[in-house]
Amino acid sequence: MSSKTPLLDTIASPADTRGLSLAELKQLAAEVRAETIDAVSVTGGHLGAGLGVVELTVALHHVFETPKDIVIWDVGHQAYPHKILTGRRDRIRTLRQGGGLSGFTKRAESEYDPFGAAHAATSISAALGFCAARDAKGEDNSVIAVIGDGSLGAGMAYEAMNAATDTTKRLIVILNDNDMSIAPPVGGMSAYLANLVSGGAYRSVRKLGKTVVEKLPTPMREAARKAEEYARGMVTGGTFFEELGFYYIGPIDGHDMDALVSVLKNAKAFGDKPVLVHCVTQKGKGYAPAEGAADKLHAVVKFDVVTGQQQKAAGGPPSYTKVFAQELIKQAEKDDKIVAITAAMPSGTGLDLFGKAFPERTFDVGIAEQHAVTFAAGMAADGMKPFAAIYSTFLQRGYDQVVHDVAIQGLPVRFAMDRAGLVGADGPTHAGSFDIGFMGALPGMVLMAAADEVELARMVATAAEIDDRPSAFRYPRGEGLGLDMPAIAEPLEIGKGRIVREGTSVAIVSFGTRLSESLKAADLLAARGLSATVCDARFAKPLDLDLLLRLAREHEAIITVEEGSMGGFGAFVLQALAQHGALDRGLKIRTLCLPDVFQDQDKPDAMYAQAGLDAEGILRGALSAMGMDNVSAAGAGRRA
Amino acid sequence: MSSKTPLLDTIASPADTRGLSLAELKQLAAEVRAETIDAVSVTGGHLGAGLGVVELTVALHHVFETPKDIVIWDVGHQAYPHKILTGRRDRIRTLRQGGGLSGFTKRAESEYDPFGAAHAATSISAALGFCAARDAKGEDNSVIAVIGDGSLGAGMAYEAMNAATDTTKRLIVILNDNDMSIAPPVGGMSAYLANLVSGGAYRSVRKLGKTVVEKLPTPMREAARKAEEYARGMVTGGTFFEELGFYYIGPIDGHDMDALVSVLKNAKAFGDKPVLVHCVTQKGKGYAPAEGAADKLHAVVKFDVVTGQQQKAAGGPPSYTKVFAQELIKQAEKDDKIVAITAAMPSGTGLDLFGKAFPERTFDVGIAEQHAVTFAAGMAADGMKPFAAIYSTFLQRGYDQVVHDVAIQGLPVRFAMDRAGLVGADGPTHAGSFDIGFMGALPGMVLMAAADEVELARMVATAAEIDDRPSAFRYPRGEGLGLDMPAIAEPLEIGKGRIVREGTSVAIVSFGTRLSESLKAADLLAARGLSATVCDARFAKPLDLDLLLRLAREHEAIITVEEGSMGGFGAFVLQALAQHGALDRGLKIRTLCLPDVFQDQDKPDAMYAQAGLDAEGILRGALSAMGMDNVSAAGAGRRA
Repeated sequence: MSSKTPLLDTIASPADTRGLSLAELKQLAAEVRAETIDAVSVTGGHLGAGLGVVELTVALHHVFETPKDIVIWDVGHQAYPHKILTGRRDRIRTLRQGGGLSGFTKRAESEYDPFGAAHAATSISAALGFCAARDAKGEDNSVIAVIGDGSLGAGMAYEAMNAATDTTKRLIVILNDNDMSIAPPVGGMSAYLANLVSGGAYRSVRKLGKTVVEKLPTPMREAARKAEEYARGMVTGGTFFEELGFYYIGPIDGHDMDALVSVLKNAKAFGDKPVLVHCVTQKGKGYAPAEGAADKLHAVVKFDVVTGQQQKAAGGPPSYTKVFAQELIKQAEKDDKIVAITAAMPSGTGLDLFGKAFPERTFDVGIAEQHAVTFAAGMAADGMKPFAAIYSTFLQRGYDQVVHDVAIQGLPVRFAMDRAGLVGADGPTHAGSFDIGFMGALPGMVLMAAADEVELARMVATAAEIDDRPSAFRYPRGEGLGLDMPAIAEPLEIGKGRIVREGTSVAIVSFGTRLSESLKAADLLAARGLSATVCDARFAKPLDLDLLLRLAREHEAIITVEEGSMGGFGAFVLQALAQHGALDRGLKIRTLCLPDVFQDQDKPDAMYAQAGLDAEGILRGALSAMGMDNVSAAGAGRRA
Repeated sequence: MSSKTPLLDTIASPADTRGLSLAELKQLAAEVRAETIDAVSVTGGHLGAGLGVVELTVALHHVFETPKDIVIWDVGHQAYPHKILTGRRDRIRTLRQGGGLSGFTKRAESEYDPFGAAHAATSISAALGFCAARDAKGEDNSVIAVIGDGSLGAGMAYEAMNAATDTTKRLIVILNDNDMSIAPPVGGMSAYLANLVSGGAYRSVRKLGKTVVEKLPTPMREAARKAEEYARGMVTGGTFFEELGFYYIGPIDGHDMDALVSVLKNAKAFGDKPVLVHCVTQKGKGYAPAEGAADKLHAVVKFDVVTGQQQKAAGGPPSYTKVFAQELIKQAEKDDKIVAITAAMPSGTGLDLFGKAFPERTFDVGIAEQHAVTFAAGMAADGMKPFAAIYSTFLQRGYDQVVHDVAIQGLPVRFAMDRAGLVGADGPTHAGSFDIGFMGALPGMVLMAAADEVELARMVATAAEIDDRPSAFRYPRGEGLGLDMPAIAEPLEIGKGRIVREGTSVAIVSFGTRLSESLKAADLLAARGLSATVCDARFAKPLDLDLLLRLAREHEAIITVEEGSMGGFGAFVLQALAQHGALDRGLKIRTLCLPDVFQDQDKPDAMYAQAGLDAEGILRGALSAMGMDNVSAAGAGRRA
C-alpha cells in the first residue's frame, strides 16, 4: 500500500498539505482516491459520494486552517477522504464496524469533525451557529458548509440560507452539485441547478467567476461592484442565491484543483457577505465501475477493487422493505385510490418497485419529509388512500405535520415506518428508536409493528382498510424470516393481539420482530422449568386490553419486549394495566426496550445483545422478574 | 346589526356572491369588515390578519366556486371573514369559546374548510395533495393556497414550492404580503419581498402584470411568451418564484377589488403551470385603531369598537413567560456565553425583553424551528450557552434536529418549552401535549417541569449550569401563582424531587404546575380521612428513583399527575418502578395525564376538569386507586 501512496504517507494532518504545490495537491488527491477505494472495498459503505469530493477535500484542507477554520460536511457520508486526511487513516478500514470509525462525521471522533451529521441539510444551520459563536467570541475563523444539491431541496437548508443574509460574515457554503443524492433529485431547485450548469454558460462563465472574485472590490468601488454583480447574475443565473443574500460563484468544476484552490482562496478572503460556491462534481469520479453504475456506487458492500464487483449476498429471504412494496402493489391493484409517497428514498423504501407498477400513483418529493406528510394529508382529505413510506428516523423530520395535519384532523394517512429499531452499521443517527412513543401518544392513531414478513403484509392490508383515522406500522431493516407468503394477506382485527405459545407462569409480550427471540427465550425458560406464554401484541395502539388483563391475571410475571425507546409499548401497557387496577395486588412486570443510550454502530446481533433484546436478554429479564437472577450466568440485562 | 350590513344579510353562502357587481363586492367587503370587528370586539381573538384579507376573501369566493374549488388558508387565524361568508356568521360570536367556532380553519366545522390549520406554512403542501387527488380522480377544480410572507420563511413552504414545479396544474398560491407575521419578519426572503414591493416597480408593474395575464398565450405563441416572461421577470423581479417553477404575478394591491377580481379570474383560467399571485395587504386594514397599532392588533381581548381600547386585564401575577425572560436576563448578566433563540415569537416567548437587554445575544430566526434548533446546536458546539425558547407545540417542528443535532451529540442546548400543556382558546393545534414523551425518551436529556414561577426561575438557573448535555424545562401558558421571587434563583440538584406535604397512605407525585391542584386534592382526601403525601417531581429525566422507591414502599397508592399525553412522566415512573421490582408485590398506582383525545378549545379550568387534572379529578384518581370510587360524587375521571 505504501508504494501506491507515497505522498499521502507523509500527511499526518491537514497542516501537512498547506505547503504543497498544485501538482502535489493533484497527486495527493489521486492517492486519497485510491486509498478511499481500497478501504471501502474492505469495509463496504458509502463510496460514490466520497469519490466525488476528493479534490474538494484536499483543496479545503490546503486552503483553510482546519480545525481552526470550521468545515461541516452535510450528511457526512462523503467524508471518508476527509477522515483519511485528518489523522484517521490508520483506522479507515474499521469504518462502520463495531468499535470502529463512524460512517459519518462525528464530534467524538476528531477535532476535525466540529459538527457531526448523517441526516441531510443540517450543515448550513450548524455553520451559522459557529459563525454566531465566533462573532460573540471576537474570533475570525472561516466557517464552511459543504452541502449536496439533493440536500438543498430540504426546507431546513432554505431556512438556514434565509437566515444567513442578515448576520453572517466569513460563511462559505459549497454547493456540491452532482445532480443526484441517492436517487436523482426532483423538484424546481434541481431543475434550476441543471439549467445553471447546462448550456453555454458553464465553461465560459467559470473563468469569469474566477476573474470577478480575484478582483475583489474595495469599499470605494461599491457602485462598480453592484453593477458587476448584476451583470454577473444575468450571465450566470445564480440569482436564486443572490436573492437570498449570498454572493454566488460558479459553476466551477469540482475536480479541477487549480480552479478549486483559486476560488476557495478568494472566497476565504471575501468576508463581508456569505458566499455560495457552486461546484459541479461527479459522484463516483475517478473509479470506472462507479462512474458506470446507475447509482454511482452510492452505498456498497465489500467489493473487488479491479472489477468493482460487489460480493453477492447469500440468497436469503426477501427484505421487509421488499415485502412491504410487493404487498402494497397487490393492494393497489385492487384499489385505485391507493397512492404512495417517498421522500427521496425510492429504492430504500421499495417504492421504486411500486413506481414501476404505478408511476402515476407514486410521488417522490425529494428530501422533504415535512412536505411529504402534509402532501399525503392533503390527498387523504380529498379521498385518496396515501401510504407515506418513510424511515422511522426521518419521520422525526415530519413529526409536527403528523400531529398537526394528520392526527388532529383524523386523516387516514398510512405511515410505513421502515428501518424501525436498530440499524447496524449506520449507527445511532439512523436508528428508528423513538417512533413507538411519538406516534403512540397521538390520539386516534393506530400503531402496529410486524413480527415477521407475513404479519407485515397483513398490516399493509389492514392499513389499506383503515379509512377513518391515521395508521402506522413499523418494521425493521434487513431480511424477513423466510416464511411462505400467502396469496392474499388477511387484514388484522384492529387492536387485537395473538397468543403464539401458551404457558403458565411468565407471559412474554412482544411488539414487533423480537417475537422470534421471545420464542427462543421461552425455550430457555422451559429448560429452567418455567412455562412461558408468548404473545404477539401486533398493536401498541389501540392496546388489546382484554388480552393484557387476562395475561396479568393468569401469570406471575409479564415481560414486554420492543425494539424502541422507553415511553413506548411497555409504557403504554403499564399505564393501561395500572389504570385497570391490574398492578394493585402485585405483578412482576418488566418492560424490555432499547437502553437509554445512543448505541454506536455494530453488527445487528451484537447491538441486540447489548440492548438485552436477544433471547438471552429476554431470559434475563424474565428470570429477574421471577427473582431468579442468580440462575442466570449471563449477567444483568439492560432495562428501562 | 342588520341595518349596518344589508348586503351581507343576504349572503347565506359564497354562491350568493357570484352574481354581485364590483360595486356590490366592495360594499360586501366593507360590511364583512364591520362584522369582523364587531364580532372580535365581543370574543377577542385574531383581528389584524383577518382585516387584512377582507377584500381577498370576498374576491376568492366570488371568483372561485367554493367549496368545489379548494381554498386553503395558511395558519387559518385570518379566516374569520371567510367564516362569516361561509355559513358560520350566526356562530361568529362564539369564536374561540368552549363549544363555539374554532379560531382557525377546521374541517369538522365546514365543507368550506377543506384543510384545517393553525401552525404556519402547511397550506401549499396540502394544496398539492388536493391537486394530486383531483388529477387522480380526473376532476378539474382549482386549488388555492393563501400564505403570508412570514410563513414563506418556513422550510416547509419552500419544500412545497419546490415540489410544485413538476406536477401541478390549476394551483394558485396567493402570497399575502403584509410585511409582518406576528412580529416583523426576518431573513433574506423578507428582504427580497420588500425589495419587490418598494421602489418604482410596484405601481407601474401592477398594471403590466394584469395586462400580461389578460393576454394569456396560446401554445402557438410559446416563444413569444417565453420572451415576455423573461422581460416581465426583469421588471417585476419575481425571479425567485419563477426559478422554482411558478408563474409570478404581482405585486398587486390586495385591497383593490378591481385588481383582485381581474387577476384571480385570469389566474383561474391559467392552468398549465402553478401561479403565484403576490398581494400586498395591510394588516389591520380599514380599522384605525389596528392600523395605528405596532402589532396591528394581531391578537386582542375584548375591546371597544369605537376606540379600539382593549379590556384591561386585572393586575394579576406575571406570566410564566415573563418570569422566564426575567430570570434569563439575570443569568445572562452573570454569564456572557448565554444567548437566546426564538423562531418568530419574540413577544410570545419573552425574548423581546431579553433582546432589549442583550440585542447582540438574541436571535430571531423567523418561522424556522428546524433551523433554530440546529443553529443553537452549532453555537453550543462552539462553546456558547444557547437557550432556545420555543412553544412546546412548535418544537415538534424541530424534533429531528433535537434528536440528531442536539441529543446524539450531547450538546448543551437548553430548551425553554413555553405553552406546555393545555392552552385554552387556541385549542388542540396549539396544545403542548407531547413534549414530555418525545423529549424524555432521548438519552442524556435533562427534562424538568416547573411547579410554579419560583421553580421556573430555578430551572432557568439550573439549565444555565448544565453544560455537558442537553436540557429542557416546560412551563404553561398564563400567569404564575403570584409568589415572591427570590433575588437569586438557586439551581436545583439534578434529578431530585421534593416532598411538599408529608402523609401516609397516598402519594401524589406531580410533574409541573398541577402541583397546586394536587395540594388541593390532598385537602379533599384529608376530609375523607386519607392522609396524602404530595411530591413535586421536578425532573422527568433523570427520575428521582430513591424518592419514588421510598414513596412506593411507604404508601399504599401512588398517583402521578402531569399535563401531558400518555407515554410521558407517569409512564417513565412506571417503567422505573417495574424495573426495580416495586410493583412486584402490589402498588395501587394511577398515572393521570391528558386524555387520549384532542381537546377542543375552552376556558382552561373547564379543560382541566375535562381532563381530570383538577383537584376533583386527582381526588377521583386517588379514590379509585384506593378502591373508594363509590365515595366520589363527581363521576369517573379520565385516565390513560
